[in-house]
Amino acid sequence: MGSNPSQPIDYQQLCKFIASCFEAAGVNSEDASVTAKLMARADLMGQDGHGVFRLPQYIKRIASKGINVKPDIKLIEERKATALLDGDNALGHLVMSRAADLAIEKAACTGVAWVGSRFSNHAGPASLYAMMPLKKDMIGIYVAVGSANHLPPWGGTEMLLSTNPIAIAIPSANNPPIVLDMATTVAAYGKVKTAAQNGETMPEGWMIDREGRPLTDPARAAEGFLLPIGGPKGYGLSLIFGILAGTLNGASFGRDVVDFNADSESVTNTGQFIIALDIAAFTDVSGFKQEVDDVWAQMKSSPLLPGHSEIRLPGERLAQVTQQRTENGIPLSPSLLSELAKLADELGVNHIV
Amino acid sequence: MGSNPSQPIDYQQLCKFIASCFEAAGVNSEDASVTAKLMARADLMGQDGHGVFRLPQYIKRIASKGINVKPDIKLIEERKATALLDGDNALGHLVMSRAADLAIEKAACTGVAWVGSRFSNHAGPASLYAMMPLKKDMIGIYVAVGSANHLPPWGGTEMLLSTNPIAIAIPSANNPPIVLDMATTVAAYGKVKTAAQNGETMPEGWMIDREGRPLTDPARAAEGFLLPIGGPKGYGLSLIFGILAGTLNGASFGRDVVDFNADSESVTNTGQFIIALDIAAFTDVSGFKQEVDDVWAQMKSSPLLPGHSEIRLPGERLAQVTQQRTENGIPLSPSLLSELAKLADELGVNHIV
Repeated sequence: MGSNPSQPIDYQQLCKFIASCFEAAGVNSEDASVTAKLMARADLMGQDGHGVFRLPQYIKRIASKGINVKPDIKLIEERKATALLDGDNALGHLVMSRAADLAIEKAACTGVAWVGSRFSNHAGPASLYAMMPLKKDMIGIYVAVGSANHLPPWGGTEMLLSTNPIAIAIPSANNPPIVLDMATTVAAYGKVKTAAQNGETMPEGWMIDREGRPLTDPARAAEGFLLPIGGPKGYGLSLIFGILAGTLNGASFGRDVVDFNADSESVTNTGQFIIALDIAAFTDVSGFKQEVDDVWAQMKSSPLLPGHSEIRLPGERLAQVTQQRTENGIPLSPSLLSELAKLADELGVNHIV
Repeated sequence: MGSNPSQPIDYQQLCKFIASCFEAAGVNSEDASVTAKLMARADLMGQDGHGVFRLPQYIKRIASKGINVKPDIKLIEERKATALLDGDNALGHLVMSRAADLAIEKAACTGVAWVGSRFSNHAGPASLYAMMPLKKDMIGIYVAVGSANHLPPWGGTEMLLSTNPIAIAIPSANNPPIVLDMATTVAAYGKVKTAAQNGETMPEGWMIDREGRPLTDPARAAEGFLLPIGGPKGYGLSLIFGILAGTLNGASFGRDVVDFNADSESVTNTGQFIIALDIAAFTDVSGFKQEVDDVWAQMKSSPLLPGHSEIRLPGERLAQVTQQRTENGIPLSPSLLSELAKLADELGVNHIV
């Protein structure tokens, strides 16, 4: 391990490290590079639970033949504005960047496009893909079936549903893009894990136990389940996102979902979809972006509730963190750096620092 | 008024009454018939706050020239899979049924279509339109900018956002379609009004006052605002649905939204959008419907939490109520019947019973 584990890591350095690990694990250099850039970008965006933090898990899965490093990602259904990709059990980043490119290409002609995936895998944070259409002045929407079930249907106790996140990204003129990236549960499971690591108590409303009582000790998380936002509404969203991203694509949903934390071997058959919506199909692009700036200014101008110091827009913090980390590097915890050093030794590649 | 105000009203009878009121108010007979059928269908579906209950308000708005009864609904932007309709301030039902027809027609070719509206009006329950694509074995998604602002941005006190609802409808084989129809707030504003009428206390979590304290007395609703589902998440959804259904379409959003309860004259410039997604573009339709039945069965089979007697699927109650009311008629409260009788007298048409 390097001499100063608390020193932030440069984005390029992180890309290089991740790519070298993938290559050592048998991924070809182009796929390794594409995946590494997307994972490092997740860290750059502040999505710490979805970037290099996942690398040891992905490598373990590759070693267990749970991910195919020589995939043939195929277009298996296509219409003018839709497509379905079979990811051939590739790294999810490869499948979903292909899906995003295809959606953008189609939407440039048809105005909107919806591209789904089957036999994909965990692909990192939802916002990564929802933001891809922004570069072409398009709005992006991304939904995934989560990679482990954490909640029952409303009123039940069998964990048949995942947090099934949605991300939506909308460009503005002079402000950061508006980017909502949310689980359909009050708390994402990563927040529970973080609370457990830090020995913190969870607020009531995050989880309940099998008797329906509030569960606030994150060390007891296995005894309960996450609560959906708005009770039955969040349950409905999780269910419907699961059908649209999973069932419709011939991907896993419900009892079929493989808990990829517990099982590194079984094919997950993860399903996702992305929508690209071309703003120019509806209105003048620069005028629209100005209007989004005006929406931004309106929200910011609201008087504050007691106890609040500012109004935030979805995506505002993401943009701030991205800028900070681009300038100053990406901070990685000593425990993560130590885990990555161990991984590097196992794979016979250079340490990150 | 009729001899027995508590007798349920037949759907056809309700259609005829609503249509006669619209015709008397100057709406041509075809538009009156289309709107009446959709409004009566809302009642049939159990969406009591969005059916004939709204008739006096619509008629008042027509009389105040706040709705155009001789509209020229125009297609102002079009691509293969997208369109934007200018509703010319027509009844929202006319605009959105046109939008749904167009989305279905386009999606049959392109696989998916997204049709937005500007200068539309309140169009009744979101599920009414999300369910339209079902008849062609398509999935429907509908989003609207609400017709009055009821919540501030998260952490603020200025009511810049509406409940901006979403509905999503997915067909099944042997079960009712899965239909989620939800406001982005914990409670829709109609539920607050109902609690006020019934002299009930609201549960904590529906509303807060301007100091951020729980507001549970619905008679004090004007002193506070609705809470979004999942706190900042629901705020994000409301904001983004508002941009997609409003701003993108050149329709009202934020400070521009006209409170159509308080103001019957100003043009609301209501925005909505509908997506039709053709299942056949992804997979075999009957196989998919069977899979949705399997999802339904999985959810139903979960063991229950204490205090719950069954697992419900979104749309299950809607289907039950629709069947009951198709067989037994639509119950209308004595106060509503009395209001409708007064309206009929004013318009010089026959009473409903």
